[in-house]
Amino acid sequence: MKQLLIQNERLSRQIDFLIEIDRLKHVLRRTYLPGSDRHENSAEHSWHLALAALVLAEHSAAPVDVGHVLRLALVHDIVEIDAGDTFFYDATGGLDKAEREQRAADRLYGLLPPDQAAELRALWDEFEDRATPEAQLAYALDRFMPLLHNYLTEGRPWRQHGVGHEQVAAMTDHIAGGAAEVAALARALVADAQARGYFDPARNESNGA
Amino acid sequence: MKQLLIQNERLSRQIDFLIEIDRLKHVLRRTYLPGSDRHENSAEHSWHLALAALVLAEHSAAPVDVGHVLRLALVHDIVEIDAGDTFFYDATGGLDKAEREQRAADRLYGLLPPDQAAELRALWDEFEDRATPEAQLAYALDRFMPLLHNYLTEGRPWRQHGVGHEQVAAMTDHIAGGAAEVAALARALVADAQARGYFDPARNESNGA
Repeated sequence: MKQLLIQNERLSRQIDFLIEIDRLKHVLRRTYLPGSDRHENSAEHSWHLALAALVLAEHSAAPVDVGHVLRLALVHDIVEIDAGDTFFYDATGGLDKAEREQRAADRLYGLLPPDQAAELRALWDEFEDRATPEAQLAYALDRFMPLLHNYLTEGRPWRQHGVGHEQVAAMTDHIAGGAAEVAALARALVADAQARGYFDPARNESNGA
Repeated sequence: MKQLLIQNERLSRQIDFLIEIDRLKHVLRRTYLPGSDRHENSAEHSWHLALAALVLAEHSAAPVDVGHVLRLALVHDIVEIDAGDTFFYDATGGLDKAEREQRAADRLYGLLPPDQAAELRALWDEFEDRATPEAQLAYALDRFMPLLHNYLTEGRPWRQHGVGHEQVAAMTDHIAGGAAEVAALARALVADAQARGYFDPARNESNGA
């Protein structure tokens, strides 16, 4: 990216970081947007996840500071700029995911002034560790939102990547820890998807509507 | 959108809202993403604006609750799903913008349970009124981010829409109220853009890099 020659060193680093993370808008996920042939990107997904946290926070298993959940949602995928998006059901890509993402976090958050680098890196670590109620809710919704998208697009990514009903049903356990009522809905969606044939490899491709 | 037949009426309305706002990912802005021919959409812009608020909050003219600025950034463009994105420099589109956006807010926030509809609508009203320090900062950064994008893409949207140097220079006054140091940077970018010929209608189209 362009050198903006800002005299204020601190502001300069902050702007460099904001310019660099623009690239998250080009990181494509496996999900499709309902009613279109376009894949979702990780920046717009992060916005949608933050909105989900704002609207669904009352279903959290434990009381949460909503503003803090929003911070976790906003930063949770920034490492994908370097590390790429790893599909939840991709066992091979999952093997070196942690190492790739740690390197990415070092470089990307390292663009910021040191105090902010530490602050945003700590948010990402918190999301990954899932030890706080806020991280548990953010993680649960990060599992729920692609399920909702995949259901609305009639399971297209599941069939494209050979993901079976049992795998998605098992995944809903990750939602239950953060938001039981949302997990119950997720299970209903998986059961209905199965009944409608969304996991059937022989099904014609369609995007839903 | 599909009826999900959720028995819990409150959760059902929340999910309907989350499905409906997915459409913000299809609302295109005048800005281009640096290094590509793609227009920015309003969902990914909202994410970027929220990150700008997180990173630049210390430059706010008055102390702010950062979590609240994030809320304002996340909801500030949702009305565009119905009302479309109105270019800041579009005097004609600006005439009925308020009325179109009020109708949009009625419908979109009205999808939520009444207490949440009121809560999110109040956030949007607060952003529009710009009476709180949080709204002033969010608004200032919402003016700054497209300027940064337009500078990085060498002024392409300015030339395409016949926007002159004086108009963009005058726009920076809207940044100064929320964040003086960011406004100073904005003015330096506008001066540099002028020096580089980014406002010159005869300039060849290019996207920057």
